[in-house]
Amino acid sequence: MAIPQNIKDEMKARRRDFHKYPESGWAEFRTTAIAAEILEKIGWKVRFAKDFIDPDEVMGYNVVPQKERTRAISQGADKKTLAKIGAYTGLAATLDTGRKGPVTVFRFDIDCVETEEAHDAEHLPEREGFSSVNPGWMHACGHDGHAAVGLALAEMLMRKKDGLRGKIRLLFQPAEEGVRGGYAMAMAGVADDADYFIAMHLGLGKPTGSVSGGTGGFLCSTKFDADFRGIGAHAGGEPERGKNALLAAAAAAVNMHAISPHSGGATRVNVGVLNAGEGRNVVPPNAHMKIETRGESAELAAYVYAKAKEVIYGAAQMYDVDVSISKQGETITAESDRKLAALIMSAAEGAEGVTLLEEYRSMAGSDDACWLMRRVQEHGGLAAYVGIGASTAAGHHNNRFDFDEEAMPIALEVLLNSATLLNGTGGTPAVLDN
Amino acid sequence: MAIPQNIKDEMKARRRDFHKYPESGWAEFRTTAIAAEILEKIGWKVRFAKDFIDPDEVMGYNVVPQKERTRAISQGADKKTLAKIGAYTGLAATLDTGRKGPVTVFRFDIDCVETEEAHDAEHLPEREGFSSVNPGWMHACGHDGHAAVGLALAEMLMRKKDGLRGKIRLLFQPAEEGVRGGYAMAMAGVADDADYFIAMHLGLGKPTGSVSGGTGGFLCSTKFDADFRGIGAHAGGEPERGKNALLAAAAAAVNMHAISPHSGGATRVNVGVLNAGEGRNVVPPNAHMKIETRGESAELAAYVYAKAKEVIYGAAQMYDVDVSISKQGETITAESDRKLAALIMSAAEGAEGVTLLEEYRSMAGSDDACWLMRRVQEHGGLAAYVGIGASTAAGHHNNRFDFDEEAMPIALEVLLNSATLLNGTGGTPAVLDN
Amino acid sequence: MAIPQNIKDEMKARRRDFHKYPESGWAEFRTTAIAAEILEKIGWKVRFAKDFIDPDEVMGYNVVPQKERTRAISQGADKKTLAKIGAYTGLAATLDTGRKGPVTVFRFDIDCVETEEAHDAEHLPEREGFSSVNPGWMHACGHDGHAAVGLALAEMLMRKKDGLRGKIRLLFQPAEEGVRGGYAMAMAGVADDADYFIAMHLGLGKPTGSVSGGTGGFLCSTKFDADFRGIGAHAGGEPERGKNALLAAAAAAVNMHAISPHSGGATRVNVGVLNAGEGRNVVPPNAHMKIETRGESAELAAYVYAKAKEVIYGAAQMYDVDVSISKQGETITAESDRKLAALIMSAAEGAEGVTLLEEYRSMAGSDDACWLMRRVQEHGGLAAYVGIGASTAAGHHNNRFDFDEEAMPIALEVLLNSATLLNGTGGTPAVLDN
Amino acid sequence: MAIPQNIKDEMKARRRDFHKYPESGWAEFRTTAIAAEILEKIGWKVRFAKDFIDPDEVMGYNVVPQKERTRAISQGADKKTLAKIGAYTGLAATLDTGRKGPVTVFRFDIDCVETEEAHDAEHLPEREGFSSVNPGWMHACGHDGHAAVGLALAEMLMRKKDGLRGKIRLLFQPAEEGVRGGYAMAMAGVADDADYFIAMHLGLGKPTGSVSGGTGGFLCSTKFDADFRGIGAHAGGEPERGKNALLAAAAAAVNMHAISPHSGGATRVNVGVLNAGEGRNVVPPNAHMKIETRGESAELAAYVYAKAKEVIYGAAQMYDVDVSISKQGETITAESDRKLAALIMSAAEGAEGVTLLEEYRSMAGSDDACWLMRRVQEHGGLAAYVGIGASTAAGHHNNRFDFDEEAMPIALEVLLNSATLLNGTGGTPAVLDN
Repeated sequence: MAIPQNIKDEMKARRRDFHKYPESGWAEFRTTAIAAEILEKIGWKVRFAKDFIDPDEVMGYNVVPQKERTRAISQGADKKTLAKIGAYTGLAATLDTGRKGPVTVFRFDIDCVETEEAHDAEHLPEREGFSSVNPGWMHACGHDGHAAVGLALAEMLMRKKDGLRGKIRLLFQPAEEGVRGGYAMAMAGVADDADYFIAMHLGLGKPTGSVSGGTGGFLCSTKFDADFRGIGAHAGGEPERGKNALLAAAAAAVNMHAISPHSGGATRVNVGVLNAGEGRNVVPPNAHMKIETRGESAELAAYVYAKAKEVIYGAAQMYDVDVSISKQGETITAESDRKLAALIMSAAEGAEGVTLLEEYRSMAGSDDACWLMRRVQEHGGLAAYVGIGASTAAGHHNNRFDFDEEAMPIALEVLLNSATLLNGTGGTPAVLDN
Repeated sequence: MAIPQNIKDEMKARRRDFHKYPESGWAEFRTTAIAAEILEKIGWKVRFAKDFIDPDEVMGYNVVPQKERTRAISQGADKKTLAKIGAYTGLAATLDTGRKGPVTVFRFDIDCVETEEAHDAEHLPEREGFSSVNPGWMHACGHDGHAAVGLALAEMLMRKKDGLRGKIRLLFQPAEEGVRGGYAMAMAGVADDADYFIAMHLGLGKPTGSVSGGTGGFLCSTKFDADFRGIGAHAGGEPERGKNALLAAAAAAVNMHAISPHSGGATRVNVGVLNAGEGRNVVPPNAHMKIETRGESAELAAYVYAKAKEVIYGAAQMYDVDVSISKQGETITAESDRKLAALIMSAAEGAEGVTLLEEYRSMAGSDDACWLMRRVQEHGGLAAYVGIGASTAAGHHNNRFDFDEEAMPIALEVLLNSATLLNGTGGTPAVLDN
Repeated sequence: MAIPQNIKDEMKARRRDFHKYPESGWAEFRTTAIAAEILEKIGWKVRFAKDFIDPDEVMGYNVVPQKERTRAISQGADKKTLAKIGAYTGLAATLDTGRKGPVTVFRFDIDCVETEEAHDAEHLPEREGFSSVNPGWMHACGHDGHAAVGLALAEMLMRKKDGLRGKIRLLFQPAEEGVRGGYAMAMAGVADDADYFIAMHLGLGKPTGSVSGGTGGFLCSTKFDADFRGIGAHAGGEPERGKNALLAAAAAAVNMHAISPHSGGATRVNVGVLNAGEGRNVVPPNAHMKIETRGESAELAAYVYAKAKEVIYGAAQMYDVDVSISKQGETITAESDRKLAALIMSAAEGAEGVTLLEEYRSMAGSDDACWLMRRVQEHGGLAAYVGIGASTAAGHHNNRFDFDEEAMPIALEVLLNSATLLNGTGGTPAVLDN
Repeated sequence: MAIPQNIKDEMKARRRDFHKYPESGWAEFRTTAIAAEILEKIGWKVRFAKDFIDPDEVMGYNVVPQKERTRAISQGADKKTLAKIGAYTGLAATLDTGRKGPVTVFRFDIDCVETEEAHDAEHLPEREGFSSVNPGWMHACGHDGHAAVGLALAEMLMRKKDGLRGKIRLLFQPAEEGVRGGYAMAMAGVADDADYFIAMHLGLGKPTGSVSGGTGGFLCSTKFDADFRGIGAHAGGEPERGKNALLAAAAAAVNMHAISPHSGGATRVNVGVLNAGEGRNVVPPNAHMKIETRGESAELAAYVYAKAKEVIYGAAQMYDVDVSISKQGETITAESDRKLAALIMSAAEGAEGVTLLEEYRSMAGSDDACWLMRRVQEHGGLAAYVGIGASTAAGHHNNRFDFDEEAMPIALEVLLNSATLLNGTGGTPAVLDN
C-alpha cells in the first residue's frame, strides 16, 4: 500500500518540527497538544493521560508543569488544549469502526533525551535549521520520528476506515527515556482490551531498509536516585562536627560497582552521576547519585537492585548520614509473540524500501513498552515490538545522532499494512490461526 | 579619638551597598572601581593591581573579565574607571605626608563567598533590603565591612594628615577566599617598604566589643582541583568501552581522607566538592573535585599535599583515566609580632565600645594575609593581624551570616588610633622600643 | 568389558590410601613414587617429570622439596624412587605394543586441595579411618580416585596388551589445583605425538551412573598473587613514617571487584585471600593477596587480568608502597572434539552401572588439561574431557567432600573400552571416520 | 646508695633468662612462678593474681592456660608454684615493716611482644645466646628488664628493711602489651591503700643516663577486634551465593582511616592486622581485623572509637555479612603528680650513671599503668611514671630491639632511693610537704 507523497512530506516536516522543539519526559506539553489537535481534527477520539492514569503509578516525574506549559505556549502550543492536558502529558486516540472486530493498539513514545545537541554545520539538523532550541534537550533517540509516523498512520487509517473493522488505538506515550511513563500507561489499562499490541522503534543499529518483526530479550532495569544528607562544618576549624555525605556517596559508588556478578546471567550497575558538596572548605553536607541497575531477567534485576540498596544504606551508616532512595523508573523484559511477528513480516514484504527482513532480534537495551507488552499478553492478546532500521549519523543518545528520514515511510507502510491485515474486513489472517 | 556620626553612617551605607553587590574573587570590578573613585576623590594616590602584580603569581583566576565588567557597569560601576582596572581587581592607595617617618600598610580584603544568600525575612539583610542580587554570591565573611572600614579609615586619616608623618598605604586585596590573591599582592612587593603591617578581620567567633591585638597560628593551606577525564560508553550495552572517571574520583576521595595523621601536628584534608558524570546510563567520562589540604606548619602542609597528589594519581591509574591537578590557592602560616600587637592593644584601650582585650589569639583557619605578614617580617618590618569581635547571626560562610554593624566603628577607631600612634608626629611609641 | 572384583577392590584400597596421605600441588612425592613403583612393576616404561619438563614452564611452585620428601618417606614412600623423582613430581608411563597404530594419551591429575578435612564421625573417610593425616591438605576434588583409576587402567591394559596396537601413555599430572602443572606438561611435548587424548574427572555435579563424553566451555583463568611492601611504624607515635600496605591492598581488593563487566561474556574476579599487617599498633608494612581472574574466552580473561593489574599498581601508588605481581597459574579454554566424544559414548554404552549418557556438557570451571587438549589438537590429534558422574557428600573443595566409590569401576570401564576401541587391533572405529 | 656488683650481675642474668623465655600477655606462667619463688624465698609475702583479681575485669585473655603451663614446666617453672598461680598470671608482693608509715607501691610489667626476634649474629641477644626460644614471642619492649629490676629492688629493700617504715608492695603485672592487664589489677584494689605509686619504664627513646621523674600525656587507647562472617561460594561457578567478608573488611579498613580528625586534639586509628579468606577461588567467608583507636583525651578516644564502630557496622551491612566487635584492651590517660616526680628527681640526683634529669615528659604512647595511677590518685595518693633512659639497638617493638643493660642499675638505684626517701624512718621528705 504505497504512501502518498504529501503524507511523506507532511510526516518529514512534523518530525523536523518535533526535533526543533524537543521535550523531556513528562514535559511533552507541546508535542501532546499538537498531536491532540491533529488527531481530533481528522476524527480520532482523544483521551488525555490525566483522565486515565493514576498519579500513584507515575515514576520519575520531576518537571514543574506550569513552567513547561508556559514554554510550550511560547513555542506554539495551544493554550486551550494545554488546559485539557493538565499535569500529565501523553494521550490515547481511538478509531472505532463500529464493526465487530479485534482491538489493535499501537504505541509511539514522544519524549527526548537530556543532552545538548551539537550545533555545528557538520550536524544535519543544525545545517538544515531544525536543531533543538531547548537547551540540554535533544531528540537523540528518534522519538520525533515515532511521533510523526504515528500521526501519519492516524491519517492513513482514517482514509481507509471503511475497509476496517474493530477498533484501533494509538498511544502517544510520555517519558520512555528513563523508562518512566510506560508503567503508568500499562497500569491504566489502556491496552487491556487489545487483541494485538505493536510498539515500533526506528534505528537500533540497523540500516534503512531492514525490518525486525519481533524483538525480545530486553534488559530489566531499575533507575533510581540516592540522596545523602549529612551536616556541613568548617573543614579546617571543626571537621568533627560535620557528617560527610560526599564520602558516604563515594564509598557507595565504588562498592556498588563491586557487587558480585551472577551465574544466572548478565547484570549491570552504573552510578552515572554523582554531585556532592558545597564549597572547598566545607565538610560536604549533601550528595546526590543517579544510578541504574540491570539484569537479563527479572530475578537478576531484582538481585542487583537489592544488593545496590544494601550498599547504599551501609555506606550511609559508615558515615552516619541519612540517605533516601527514590525509584525514578523501572522496566521489565518481554518477548514478542512469534505469530504476531510473523504477521508483521508478511506486512513488511513488498513494502517500498524494505531490503532485509528478520523475524526475531535480541535487544541489548531496555524499553518500557515491555510493561504494555506483558499486560496485553497477560490479558490474552498478542504483542510485538517491531524494529524499523534507519541509518544514523551517530549512536543513539549521542549528541550527533540523526536518522535517515527515508526510514519513516517504511515504518508507516509496515504499520499500516499490519493494521490492514489485522483489522481488515477480510477477517483474521491465516498466519495468526492455529 | 571619637568617630563622627556622619562617618559612621556613611560606613554603614557603604557596607550595605557592597553587601548587595557582592563580587567573588578576581571579579571585584565594581568594588574596586567604587573604592578607587572614593580614594582618589579625597586625595589618595591609587595604583591598580594590574599595574604592579605579576600575572604569573596570580592563583585561582577563573572569571571572564569582559563578562564581569559588563555586570559591574549594570550595577553602577564607572566605565572609565573599569578601563583602568583591566583584568586584575584590587588596588593600593598611598598617603605620603611628605614628612620623614615610618611606612604603615593596612590590608582589607574585598571579595565575597560563593554561596547563595538566604532570602527570607528572618535574615536581616533581606528584611532591610540589602541582600545579594548576584546569584550564588554572598558577603558571608564580613569583607563588605572590611572594605567599608578601609574607606572610612582613608577619610579619617586624610582629615588628620597634618598630624602624621611617613607614609600610610591601604591595600584593597582581591580573592582572599580560596587564599588566592594575597600571594600576588605580596610578591608584587607592595608592602616591602612597610615598617608596620596590619591586617584586620571582623567576627572570628568573638562578640562585638572584643579586640585581639595579635593573631597567629594560621593553618597553612593548599587549595587545588583535580580533573579526571575518562571515556563515556553505554553502561548497559558496552560498559567495557568506558573508562570510569567517577569511580576514580570516588576512590581518590575516600583514600585521600585516609592519609595518615602526622605526629608533628594537626593536618586536614577536605574533598569539598565532587561533580561527576553525564547521564544515568552512561559510564561517567568526567569528574571534578575541589580539594584543600592544611597543616599547622609549612612542613605538615607539604606532607599532606604530597600524599594527596599520590592518592589522586594512583586512583587515576586504577581506573586508567587521565587526571590533572591544578593549584587554585595557597597560603602559609604566620605569627603577629608581639610588640605591634601590644601597640594595637594600647590603641584599643579606651576606644568606644571596646569591652574585652586580648593580646594573642590562635586562629584555627587560614588567611592569605600571611603572605604579606611574612614578607614584611622578612624585610625587617613588624606585622600583626587584629581581630575585631563582631556578634554574628550565623557562622562565617553560612548563608545566614550577618555581623553586628556596631563592630565597624570599633574597627575603625582601633586602626585609626594605631595609625596615629605609629605615624603620629610625636615619634615612635615607647611600646615599640627596646 | 567387565572389571574383575580384585581390580575393583585394589582400586578402592589405593584410593583410600591416597586419600589418607593427600599431597598438595608439586608436593606429590609419595603419590608419584607409589605410582611409579606399581607401573614399573607391571611393565610400563616410566619417565619422571624432572626428565622432560622445563623448569621455566613450571608455575606456582612453592614447596620445599627436601621437606616434602622427608615427609613422604615417613609416610611410606621409597627413598630410591624419590631420588629419581628429583624436585618435580608427576610422571609419564608408556605401553608400546610394538604394533603400528595410533598413540592414545590419558591424563590423571594427582594433587589435593589445600583445605582441612572434616574430622567428625559424620564424614565417611573419618568414620572408616582414611581421612587425611596431613594438616591443611585434603583430597576434596576426587584426584585420589583419578590416580587409583589410572593405576587400575594400567593393569587392565597390560593384561589386554596382546589385543592392542600403537602406543598408550598415561600421564600422572601434578598441581592441577591452581591450574599450575598442566602447562609444563603440555609444553614438554609429552602429548605431541598423540592421535587421541582423553582427560577424565569424577563428580562435577552429576550422580553416579552418568557419563558425559565431551566437555567444553572451560573458563580461561589466571591465578596470581600480589605482594605489597610498605614500611612499618608505631601507629600512635609516628604514623607518618609508615607506608600502609594493608590499606593499599584493601583499596585494591574493593576496586578490583569493581572492574566493569564486559558485553562479550562473563568475567570473574576473586580476591580470595588477603593477609596483611604485623601487630595491632604497627602501621602494616606488608600485605599479600591471592587473586584469580576468569573469562569465558581468552580475550575476556586477558581483559579482566589487565584491568586487575592496573588497579593493583594504582592502589600501590596511592599509598606509596611497592607491589609485585606473580602469576601462580593459568589456563585456557578448550573444547572436546565431538568425534572423540562420540567414540567415548559408544565405549560407555553397556558399561556396568552407566545409566545416563550425554555427548556434550558445558563446564563452569577451569582445568589445566585444556593446555594438553589444545596442544594435541594443534598437532592434529583429537581430544576429549570425559566427565564420570559420582554422587558426592558435599560440593567439590568443601571439607566434607567425598565421592561414591562405585563411580571408579565405571570410569575404569569407560576408559578401558575407549582404549580398546581406539587401539584395538581391529582398526579405526567407524565413528571416527568420515 | 651504690648497688653491689653481685646484685648487678644477678639482675643482668635474670634479665637474660627472662629474655630467652619471653611470655606473651596472660601467658607469663614461667615468669610469675620464678618471681614468686625468689620473692618468697627472701621474705616477701606473695599473693597471686588469681586470688585477688575479678575474672570479669580481665581483657584480651586469649591463652590456653593448660598449654602454657605445660610449656612453662618444660622451660623450668616449678609445678607446685604453677598450681598456685591457676589461670591468671601476675602477683603482688608486700613487705610490711611493722612500723607505722606510708604505703608505697611499685609496678613492673612482665609480658613480651608478639613478634619474631631477629636471629642473626648482628643481634646481640642472638650473639650472646639469650635470644627467644619461643617462636613469635620476643621481649621487644624491655619488660624483661623491668622484671629483673623489680626482683633486685625486692632484695635490696629486704636488706634495708630495718631502716624502713610502713609497707612496700611490688606489683608484677601481666599483659601490659595491648593494655589488657592493668585494668584488672587496678580494679582489684591492689593499690587502693597506696600513698605513693611508681611505675617505671626503660628506654622510651632516651639514652642511658637520662631520667624523667614524671611522665604524662599518655594517649587513651582502645584495642579491639572485628570479626566478619560471610558465606563462602565457588568464585567462578556461583559467586552470587557468597557473602564477601573480605570486601566488607577492606571497605571498613579504608573508611575507618578516613574518620575525620578532631579539633580537640590528636586521634589515631590503626587497622594493624587483616586476615581474610580461605582459598584463591572461594568467595571469602571470613575476615578478622585487629584495630586500635587512640585519642589525647578520654573524649577524643571515645569519639574515634564510636566512629570506628559505625564504619565497621556499615561496611558489614554493605556486604550483607555479620560482624562482631570485641574489645581486647583499653587504657586511659594519666598525669604524674609533680610533687612525687620532684621527689624521684631528688632520688635520682647523684645516682651512679645519671647524666640528664628532666622533671616532666610527654609520652606519645599508651600504658595501662594509667589505670593504677588514676585509681591511686582518686584514693588520695600520689602517682608517678618514671622513665629511665636506655640506649637501644632499634625502636620499641622492632625485632632488633635490645637495650643497654647499664640502664638497669640506674633504674634500681633511682627506685631504691625513692623508696628510702618515702618509707625511710626519717619521716616525710620536705619536697612532699605543703
